[in-house]
Amino acid sequence: MSEKRTEISDLGEFGLIDTLTKDFVSYSPSTIKGVGDDAAVIATSEEEVMLVSTDMLVEGIHFNLMYSPLMHLGYKSVVVNLSDIYAMNGTPKQITVSIAISSRFPLEAVEELYKGIKKACDIYQVDLIGGDTTSSLSGLMISITALGTAKKDEVVYRSGAKEYDLLVVSGDLGGAYMGLQVLERERAVFKANPEIQPDLDGHDYLLERQLKPEARKDVIQILKELEVHPTAMIDISDGLASEIMHICKASEVGCTIYDERIPLDAKTSIAAIEFNVDPVTTALNGGEDYELLFTIKQEDYEKVASNPNFTVIGHITDKASGVNLVDKNGSHIALKAQGWNHFAE
Amino acid sequence: MSEKRTEISDLGEFGLIDTLTKDFVSYSPSTIKGVGDDAAVIATSEEEVMLVSTDMLVEGIHFNLMYSPLMHLGYKSVVVNLSDIYAMNGTPKQITVSIAISSRFPLEAVEELYKGIKKACDIYQVDLIGGDTTSSLSGLMISITALGTAKKDEVVYRSGAKEYDLLVVSGDLGGAYMGLQVLERERAVFKANPEIQPDLDGHDYLLERQLKPEARKDVIQILKELEVHPTAMIDISDGLASEIMHICKASEVGCTIYDERIPLDAKTSIAAIEFNVDPVTTALNGGEDYELLFTIKQEDYEKVASNPNFTVIGHITDKASGVNLVDKNGSHIALKAQGWNHFAE
Repeated sequence: MSEKRTEISDLGEFGLIDTLTKDFVSYSPSTIKGVGDDAAVIATSEEEVMLVSTDMLVEGIHFNLMYSPLMHLGYKSVVVNLSDIYAMNGTPKQITVSIAISSRFPLEAVEELYKGIKKACDIYQVDLIGGDTTSSLSGLMISITALGTAKKDEVVYRSGAKEYDLLVVSGDLGGAYMGLQVLERERAVFKANPEIQPDLDGHDYLLERQLKPEARKDVIQILKELEVHPTAMIDISDGLASEIMHICKASEVGCTIYDERIPLDAKTSIAAIEFNVDPVTTALNGGEDYELLFTIKQEDYEKVASNPNFTVIGHITDKASGVNLVDKNGSHIALKAQGWNHFAE
Repeated sequence: MSEKRTEISDLGEFGLIDTLTKDFVSYSPSTIKGVGDDAAVIATSEEEVMLVSTDMLVEGIHFNLMYSPLMHLGYKSVVVNLSDIYAMNGTPKQITVSIAISSRFPLEAVEELYKGIKKACDIYQVDLIGGDTTSSLSGLMISITALGTAKKDEVVYRSGAKEYDLLVVSGDLGGAYMGLQVLERERAVFKANPEIQPDLDGHDYLLERQLKPEARKDVIQILKELEVHPTAMIDISDGLASEIMHICKASEVGCTIYDERIPLDAKTSIAAIEFNVDPVTTALNGGEDYELLFTIKQEDYEKVASNPNFTVIGHITDKASGVNLVDKNGSHIALKAQGWNHFAE
């Protein structure tokens, strides 16, 4: 009898999750939303819900300690989880942090990591309430779970986008990806010749986007002040294209976005050209920007369009129209999610 | 300038956690209990709380796939987390499961793992609500967070033990440790000569205690039916000695336990003698039994002593008396926690 062997890389992360979780059933009436959004949603009272999101970061896969300072890594590990709570229109309140570390790390290194974790807790006002610390045979792994709250009727899911809604993104995109390219280039130079000092000058913005991103807590607040309630929302962790596909799939709609509308910082565009990459591609497929992508009703257009934090990049269509990018010549190109597949390296 | 290097193994797990978390402050009034008990406690309404516990399991540290079937591993990974929720006198409702896996694992292996996870979800009626799947450079890591609920005034902390309370343990101890010894012996034999078939006959009970433990959901139910409300409680994951020290430290008390009272299954004692280990030591320092250790008021003695699930092993004293084990000759021996230190291997 030969045993079947299917490579996980053939499925990709989302195919794997679908395969593994499809047979699970729900026992608890308090489980409002399980797998399939930025965070799970649990009813805690008539009006309130708890939001739960978790992420695992693995050395050599998600970060490289050659250029990622441990303090920044600790900060970023927390922030990427909080971003998921904001993406549900919630307020993060607590986190748990588990780490596995090999004996190559002294206490002082772990303390640096926790300094970054504490800094994020202080800035975002969340409490560290638990975790686990263990040794590993090699490398560092960080697993964080973030817990937050929201009013039940204010939670924003990926699935609420309707035809004619407008697609909006906060901030600018592609910077984190270009920051990574700069760091990788200098790492390659250093490996070839350790005498050469890294040339990171002029790339502060991109490096900060990569090494010390922020979660858009302010966006949630601004939308409340503008009295705009998004119909669907997701955070941009895997690249704009991938996130748009998630919203369209969950909402059973299509959409049209305009590449000229995609917000890019000039520093991102300049670096992209320097690296021979199409600037728009850094936004579509780069990832790790931790901006928010959301849809709003047409009637809210004025409120959002006049705010410097937001850019309307397209609109929702019917499902049959598919997910399309309109280029400078007016050509429609079917969009493909080329977000990061951890399993295909 | 020379950089200071402190080995983490010099602190041990609990010293490390203390060092890393001591500077954190609490921002959210909903955080009732953070680091320092089996689970964190978050207020969700006037009467209700949410309990949160998390564990990380690392291949080569917590499990060896040479003798741990993936399905059992998945099952056990869930159960050990649920045990922490029961140890707070709560009911687990949801879990998140994150895994990091190297490309040496095919999809079929991960599906086996998830079969075990699903089995635990079905038996304990908890919902899988999220997680993360990523690749690793080597080995398998599993990080699980369990969420549960309890009435605020029914939560049992480690810190509630009072002088004269009785110390009670469920089930029997040391079996999981002896199961591990049997598996390790057969692994060593197999490494020396792969032709020899493993000799696991007659050790079913010990192997099940090690490979497929259960969380004592029933104990929580029985205590409710007996109308016994424990004053303090903890689950036995690191060995009885270590858990007793946790209760005494958190409650600021001492205790006296009698080694003849410690419940051991005959199969555990026989295997211990076969392996030249003192049977009582398997209970005190073995770990992974996932029984519950709790304290009750003296007035509840009759209710508990007559129940076959429980054994009264000693009583709480004042702090100054310390933590003592009384042996068969009536000698008092100061107890030391020799629970598993992951960092000293």
